[in-house]
Amino acid sequence: MLRSQTKLMDMGRRQLPRLHRSMTKASNLTVVEMDDKTGIAMLTLNRPPVNSCNLELLQELHESIKQIECNKSRGLILTSSNDKVFSSGLDLNELYKPNQERLLAFWSTLQDLWLTLYQSSVPTAAAINGHALAVGCVLAAACEYRVMLPGFSIGIHATKFGYVVPPFIMMSYLSVLPRRIAERALLQGKLFTTEEALEVNLIDEVADSKSEALCKCAEFIGSFEKTQPEARALTKRQFRAPDVQLLINDPEGQLRESLEYINTPLFQQGLEEYLAKLKSKNRK
Amino acid sequence: MLRSQTKLMDMGRRQLPRLHRSMTKASNLTVVEMDDKTGIAMLTLNRPPVNSCNLELLQELHESIKQIECNKSRGLILTSSNDKVFSSGLDLNELYKPNQERLLAFWSTLQDLWLTLYQSSVPTAAAINGHALAVGCVLAAACEYRVMLPGFSIGIHATKFGYVVPPFIMMSYLSVLPRRIAERALLQGKLFTTEEALEVNLIDEVADSKSEALCKCAEFIGSFEKTQPEARALTKRQFRAPDVQLLINDPEGQLRESLEYINTPLFQQGLEEYLAKLKSKNRK
Amino acid sequence: MLRSQTKLMDMGRRQLPRLHRSMTKASNLTVVEMDDKTGIAMLTLNRPPVNSCNLELLQELHESIKQIECNKSRGLILTSSNDKVFSSGLDLNELYKPNQERLLAFWSTLQDLWLTLYQSSVPTAAAINGHALAVGCVLAAACEYRVMLPGFSIGIHATKFGYVVPPFIMMSYLSVLPRRIAERALLQGKLFTTEEALEVNLIDEVADSKSEALCKCAEFIGSFEKTQPEARALTKRQFRAPDVQLLINDPEGQLRESLEYINTPLFQQGLEEYLAKLKSKNRK
Repeated sequence: MLRSQTKLMDMGRRQLPRLHRSMTKASNLTVVEMDDKTGIAMLTLNRPPVNSCNLELLQELHESIKQIECNKSRGLILTSSNDKVFSSGLDLNELYKPNQERLLAFWSTLQDLWLTLYQSSVPTAAAINGHALAVGCVLAAACEYRVMLPGFSIGIHATKFGYVVPPFIMMSYLSVLPRRIAERALLQGKLFTTEEALEVNLIDEVADSKSEALCKCAEFIGSFEKTQPEARALTKRQFRAPDVQLLINDPEGQLRESLEYINTPLFQQGLEEYLAKLKSKNRK
Repeated sequence: MLRSQTKLMDMGRRQLPRLHRSMTKASNLTVVEMDDKTGIAMLTLNRPPVNSCNLELLQELHESIKQIECNKSRGLILTSSNDKVFSSGLDLNELYKPNQERLLAFWSTLQDLWLTLYQSSVPTAAAINGHALAVGCVLAAACEYRVMLPGFSIGIHATKFGYVVPPFIMMSYLSVLPRRIAERALLQGKLFTTEEALEVNLIDEVADSKSEALCKCAEFIGSFEKTQPEARALTKRQFRAPDVQLLINDPEGQLRESLEYINTPLFQQGLEEYLAKLKSKNRK
Repeated sequence: MLRSQTKLMDMGRRQLPRLHRSMTKASNLTVVEMDDKTGIAMLTLNRPPVNSCNLELLQELHESIKQIECNKSRGLILTSSNDKVFSSGLDLNELYKPNQERLLAFWSTLQDLWLTLYQSSVPTAAAINGHALAVGCVLAAACEYRVMLPGFSIGIHATKFGYVVPPFIMMSYLSVLPRRIAERALLQGKLFTTEEALEVNLIDEVADSKSEALCKCAEFIGSFEKTQPEARALTKRQFRAPDVQLLINDPEGQLRESLEYINTPLFQQGLEEYLAKLKSKNRK
């Protein structure tokens, strides 16, 4: 099924308008820069102060990734404009006492974004130049390669604020970590230091600076130089197909379940307490 | 689906009678002791001489685990009163020339016990203070953490007495070991030394004494202190859901298949020879 | 379901004619030699110059493996008569501008061969005494154990000539490698050196000579001495059942999809370029 899509991909390629190789899409929330020499697109998270993902950031990320794919880039590097925080995760304001219509758009964009990044036809890598928490870690894990700077934390700490992650977020961990380690980390809401993350292969390399991290990501993308791009893309899709099955077969069901959970008094109360703790911590 | 159970869990919590924190349930075959300070329940296998699992032991284990869950314990530690043998596995007398009615109760209790332990809402750990053979290993592997004393053996050696383990027992291994190692160990009927078990992560730590093992188990359970218990429990259930699907969707089919196999002349004959060998070995 | 096959296997055993233990099946393309002392069958790939798999070699391999199983051998060792190349993979002439009838026979034999080897009732090991490329690697990975000589390459480099491997070939990697490593190696079309292959456990041991490799394979097969052969065989089938489900449930669908892909202009063109490159390389 997947492999017979080749013809379509081939047709699609011919019909796509040739976008400018040196296009720079700058907006408030994400920046896309193309390296003319390498053909690699750098996608920068740029929502101060800590790249917490609200609806608008998720939408821009989704659009940017689709554009980079259409643009026949040779690869995509995800990074942050903030040198302390890659991403703090979802903007909890989107989850706390949410407007239902916005919540629906928010969560469905998250699902679409993850699918698009996880199945992206181009090679993907994350230059993790700061803390990557919750969905920050999920986005990095959806890439094919991860380089991280020392002294930061990465992980999915949802159980600490009473959140039960949906299956596609579990998959993020399982696609990278051994099952035993993935389960324990999820249950503990563990945040790994850079060193711990390297030890369990949640990240692939450590770099001393952002520019070194970007270099290592570009090297990884360069490792596909001798492969045929279409065959690579279809092999990736097929390899990852079992992981996305649930979300592709029943996106509404998965969405509904997430929204229901977010609206439970149990979760809302836990979130309230967590937000209060954060606030008092920040005051000190 | 799983996450929408939250409301039910929440209701259940309110309706459950508050049991005595310091309840001690002592019977012939298992002992449950609550640590008032830590809130952790210790469940001790206590069927001399070697904790071989007959119907009654399985039943008591199952009841004890359910009770510990209802009792809002902070965790469960499984251990043995025998300082040489954690458990020798199933009582082979239950399998050899079995009374069919008792066999049915026996195997269905084993299935229920495994499901209950594997999906237990509280953090679980095994302090393996002696040999853990066959179902002894399966029970330990169903916990979330394993600490073992040196000088003992652990593993599923079913192929050595002609037994083909059912899928849920394969899952015990696969939930902890890499696939390659799980397959080979199952096919060889391999018993791991404590050191080998640590090497492949079948166990998580080695302790020099039972009390040290209990301490390390309690420390592991303490690692969940900052997580919300309901979110932790639901995340665990959801993570482990694919592993229990077969047994939950078709318990009768799984049961029937196991009983059929146990009743084959091939298995009965192999078991007879194995029991004869054990007998002559014990005589020497 | 699997375990209830025991009775059939048992019956089958009684009805099978007892073949000569010392039978030697010699043909042009494979050689089967029985070791009367150990009861182990050695199956040698013998198609000069580089054991590239054409239809006839696949057919002989398939027949030989079935014969070894029927012959109640204690184990099977797969090796090569060429001391530089274990197998160069599929004969690309079978794929380039193919005769459709022959292509159908070719690919369906490949599917059957893989299924037969992967689920073989006897213990299987590969003594990899040369490069094992593409299907050469797949055959080795379908065995239960791999010993390799230093200085050679092993891997599935399909993306390099534009081929998208079918799910059963992905399974070959996934049955041995961690998911993260399997995906990356497939996408890169990576060929591992002997040392790299040992590092990621794509092979189990390194041996300095073919005879040492054969010894180590025989030792591995000897590790099942104390297991009951029927229980071992059924446990293996059950353990590997999820991996072969797709190919067993829908062999025609899987076949059709592979043939369709092979016939795409995209693949044919990529193959043409690859063959041209090989040719000019060989000329130099």
